[in-house]
Amino acid sequence: MKPGGGDGPHVFVSDLERPELRDEDSHHLIRSLRLRPGDSFTASDGAGSWRVCRLGSGPHGVPEPAGEVVYVEAPRPRLAIGFALIKGGRPELVVQKLTELGVDAVVPFAADRSVVRWDAERAARHIQRLRQVAREAAMQSRQVRIPEIGEVAEFADLSAQPGAVRADISGSPPSLEHPTVLIGPEGGWSEAERRQLGAIRLSTSVLRSETAAIAAATLLAALREGLAATS
Amino acid sequence: MKPGGGDGPHVFVSDLERPELRDEDSHHLIRSLRLRPGDSFTASDGAGSWRVCRLGSGPHGVPEPAGEVVYVEAPRPRLAIGFALIKGGRPELVVQKLTELGVDAVVPFAADRSVVRWDAERAARHIQRLRQVAREAAMQSRQVRIPEIGEVAEFADLSAQPGAVRADISGSPPSLEHPTVLIGPEGGWSEAERRQLGAIRLSTSVLRSETAAIAAATLLAALREGLAATS
Repeated sequence: MKPGGGDGPHVFVSDLERPELRDEDSHHLIRSLRLRPGDSFTASDGAGSWRVCRLGSGPHGVPEPAGEVVYVEAPRPRLAIGFALIKGGRPELVVQKLTELGVDAVVPFAADRSVVRWDAERAARHIQRLRQVAREAAMQSRQVRIPEIGEVAEFADLSAQPGAVRADISGSPPSLEHPTVLIGPEGGWSEAERRQLGAIRLSTSVLRSETAAIAAATLLAALREGLAATS
Repeated sequence: MKPGGGDGPHVFVSDLERPELRDEDSHHLIRSLRLRPGDSFTASDGAGSWRVCRLGSGPHGVPEPAGEVVYVEAPRPRLAIGFALIKGGRPELVVQKLTELGVDAVVPFAADRSVVRWDAERAARHIQRLRQVAREAAMQSRQVRIPEIGEVAEFADLSAQPGAVRADISGSPPSLEHPTVLIGPEGGWSEAERRQLGAIRLSTSVLRSETAAIAAATLLAALREGLAATS
């Protein structure tokens, strides 16, 4: 069971037993959505549990629990998308869309032909920002889990995971036997990367990196939810 | 057969018998990609035909045909996505991604709950811009067809098309029997719209409008290309 059938306000809190709103979320509920004391919304811990709450009185609207805590089993298999570091604001778009689509983990990685490299400080800043984007997108799309945004990985780390596969126009149709999909950089895969890991195909067209990441998430989520079948 | 196996420069020209480059495309080939006289690329008429050309000498690099004209049959069924007018720069993102994914037509429409309305002048400007985005995305993703960007339609126009369907979280799995998918506005569908047209489901999550449009295109294209099967 998912929170409340697809509409109504939804927020994340650290502790469902004693829910407290972050300032930004309190602002969102009270200022943007104009909830008033006594109005109900759903709160989730971002780790699979949620409950109905009512907005308390007082300026920050401390939530009052108004329903039992419900735990939602994690869907299987766990879906993970690795995306090669790419230029510009694309990682945020990728994380936002993948979160909406229900992906469980998103991991940036350095590919042989990644033009962009992040030093430690820049990586930390980017990862923090991506985690914020994931939290906001999970809230808006009413998820009970916030996807894990991994630290910047190497191709070898990800390709060693069971079921890992590259996205490549010469690959096979996607399947749940390969629930970890790596998306290459604009320059494509190196010969070494090709040799190391099998490939699935997401489209007959040449896709931009961020489109490939979204397409992979869409297809894997549809397969996992039974909205499409393996061809 | 698609142009040249997925890499190498690709441009659109009005006439494949006497190919001429638009200034912007000549600039792209010569300045950005640094092609030199004699280098080959593919040119397409955006309507299914393409041929190999070589860059001519001279400042504008008039192309010299270097291969026969190849015609690529249009894939069936024709895929069309209607998207309700939405705020901000999203229509451009939608058109770019849908073009990459091989959708044949993209049509903005006014839904009952569309917050945004375009007057005639604004609509003309937006449509012109979206056609430019489609052309650029089709070029980059090496398509031989530029998708049709329709004039702003009404819900009734699109829902009357055979095989039209709404995207809705309560719908059935997508299938090629419904190759025209309408994406609602952020406020959702009105009761009248719900009554008028059946629905397909793209995800178990609540998706933003632009994510739903991309997910619909991904799933329909995968079904058409045999990369996934109807569930």
